[in-house]
Amino acid sequence: MGRPFDKAQGTPFRFTLRATDGAARLGEFETPHGLVHTPAFMPVGTQGAVKATLHRDLIDSGAEIVLGNTYHLFLRPGDELIARRGGLHRFIGWNRPLLTDSGGFQVFSLAERRTITEEGAEFQSHLDGSRHQLTPERAVDIQARLGSDVAMVLDECLAYPATHEAAAESMQRSVRWASRCRARLERLRAEPPPGVTVSNAGQAQFGIVQGGVFADLRRESADATVAIGFEGYAIGGLSVGEPIDQMYAVVQETAARLPVAAPRYLMGAGTPEDLVECVARGIDMFDCVMPTRNARNGQLFTSQGRINIKNAAQAEDDRPVDPACGCYTCTHHSRAYLRHLYLAGEMTAGALNTLHNLTFYLDTMKRIREAIQLGTFERFRQEFLRLSGDSRTNS
Amino acid sequence: MGRPFDKAQGTPFRFTLRATDGAARLGEFETPHGLVHTPAFMPVGTQGAVKATLHRDLIDSGAEIVLGNTYHLFLRPGDELIARRGGLHRFIGWNRPLLTDSGGFQVFSLAERRTITEEGAEFQSHLDGSRHQLTPERAVDIQARLGSDVAMVLDECLAYPATHEAAAESMQRSVRWASRCRARLERLRAEPPPGVTVSNAGQAQFGIVQGGVFADLRRESADATVAIGFEGYAIGGLSVGEPIDQMYAVVQETAARLPVAAPRYLMGAGTPEDLVECVARGIDMFDCVMPTRNARNGQLFTSQGRINIKNAAQAEDDRPVDPACGCYTCTHHSRAYLRHLYLAGEMTAGALNTLHNLTFYLDTMKRIREAIQLGTFERFRQEFLRLSGDSRTNS
Repeated sequence: MGRPFDKAQGTPFRFTLRATDGAARLGEFETPHGLVHTPAFMPVGTQGAVKATLHRDLIDSGAEIVLGNTYHLFLRPGDELIARRGGLHRFIGWNRPLLTDSGGFQVFSLAERRTITEEGAEFQSHLDGSRHQLTPERAVDIQARLGSDVAMVLDECLAYPATHEAAAESMQRSVRWASRCRARLERLRAEPPPGVTVSNAGQAQFGIVQGGVFADLRRESADATVAIGFEGYAIGGLSVGEPIDQMYAVVQETAARLPVAAPRYLMGAGTPEDLVECVARGIDMFDCVMPTRNARNGQLFTSQGRINIKNAAQAEDDRPVDPACGCYTCTHHSRAYLRHLYLAGEMTAGALNTLHNLTFYLDTMKRIREAIQLGTFERFRQEFLRLSGDSRTNS
Repeated sequence: MGRPFDKAQGTPFRFTLRATDGAARLGEFETPHGLVHTPAFMPVGTQGAVKATLHRDLIDSGAEIVLGNTYHLFLRPGDELIARRGGLHRFIGWNRPLLTDSGGFQVFSLAERRTITEEGAEFQSHLDGSRHQLTPERAVDIQARLGSDVAMVLDECLAYPATHEAAAESMQRSVRWASRCRARLERLRAEPPPGVTVSNAGQAQFGIVQGGVFADLRRESADATVAIGFEGYAIGGLSVGEPIDQMYAVVQETAARLPVAAPRYLMGAGTPEDLVECVARGIDMFDCVMPTRNARNGQLFTSQGRINIKNAAQAEDDRPVDPACGCYTCTHHSRAYLRHLYLAGEMTAGALNTLHNLTFYLDTMKRIREAIQLGTFERFRQEFLRLSGDSRTNS
């Protein structure tokens, strides 16, 4: 790691590598709100809630850490209101680990409604058009108020495709921003300035490697980010439309360049197959809206591929979504009933489908961890891909 | 009762009166899917699901019986599909008692899209405009396919206000329909004709007393309905806009005229105060969409009156909705968080609010039963109304 972790600074964040199997890693990290076993999948709780899911269902599904979106929480209900409530954990009633993004990704997605300078980003709220500024320092301050266990630096998220020149400029700016983010966090750790509430003194901070699909830029970004020194490292700017093989290649090369002793987080990915393939390339953490969003649209992941619950094939199918699944949905309800709920527009369709998809994702992570522990990860990977690939088009 | 219950006909339905306190009654009834303690509140599961609620949450809230709407289930997914799945219990994965209405109330609500004759009602589906006929016999057959534990006769639901003449004609037609419904059920019990699947051989059937707000008509209807002979008796045609005192008066007089040895069900009521006031007048069963519908609109019932979760007063309120409530929502989340979820349009707002409101309703029924058992119902009633009335306008 670029700089050794300084315990005196207050974060109990600590990553322990337990086993490896090829490039796949089994580990865990400690946060002020408990332990997270890696490889880990983080359900996305955009506005302080994972859509259609009660916290207890997250716990039942095996979720150990949830992601909150800084952009959304900053706009509504506001980071200062959340700080007055004692931070995001207390506000939402979730006393397990939380990670927050920087808000950058959503701001950059606003397209016409934002401008970017060296100082940071100016943007208009998608809710009421109000104008706001997001600088590296503000991204740190907002996340300090939210009090997540892991905060992310503000980075520039480039659209795909981009030229080498644009990717290089953007990446270098992200490195400068990362440096400003770290400096700001160190200031908050030493003594928060007036107006900044630090809701979680043990908050860790992850840097983000950028550089598009260019190997040289990814190397440069990884080295510069590691030189600044963070508790963990993310790979950003992927899963944005590039070919899947290119994504896997960037993941593999970038992960290999990151410190062994810190967790590696691939942001915004992916399909169940992506999780397996990227664990195989050295990734420890994932987040993605796919299991929750697809659930609400009626697409269910199973050990034998995907099912579209809307399809007529399910109308009189009394089987569970996935006979291999032990979730509440699969142990209590049939495909026929889930299809009926979906077509009838019942909210419980979203709840039951989400519960299943999250369980499928989190079970997959558990099986991945078990396979690494047993040294059978490659066999697991082959079998997983064979089963899911065989029946992608199933029903 | 008009006719003694004939066990040879196969239904294990049996009502036992355990205690009385004034006109209030403590009892229970046995169904093929278990026991229901009365006075009971039945959450409404219109389309085979109580909106925004998983079955396990119903069980946790103390629900012992759920109501399904025949009109909706007949149109989608269809009573024959449900019969092929083994009946409504198996189709929806709820193995506790179920009551179905006859479909009449929804059909009569279609206004321009239905015509009524002595034979029955013709109506157009609100979903696709398709034409259907609902006769007393069909209402029995459809409910036989659904296989609920308690089926309701088809009655004519008159709009309020109505003249004495219109109410009399309509009531007399309802009595003739009730007679046809009972004859049809007896035929199904003896030997179902081809094409009618009886999913639950132990299904009971309740008659419905009509007659608007006219005491003489209610008496005539009660006597005629009891003379036909059913396992239980409902009071229909109330909670349709008449003044509350008039509703209470009709309930009191009608309940007093019904057999002591059968359960009495007030259809479609009501507020928490209505439940207490109508138990005081001899009612044993209730159903109403109010706890679930109001929850989705942000109105929460508490032991100290109603709260509108949208209000600014809740924005920084860290208290639970009701400190006296032990539901998941109240033990895990603050008013501030629930307000945020509601304003952010999160589906979990509906789920958490519904869970609370149903718990409040079902807890109220439990407290009512305890008070009758202890012989303190009148004191309970006074205290309940004082607390809830004091703060109706609270927040």
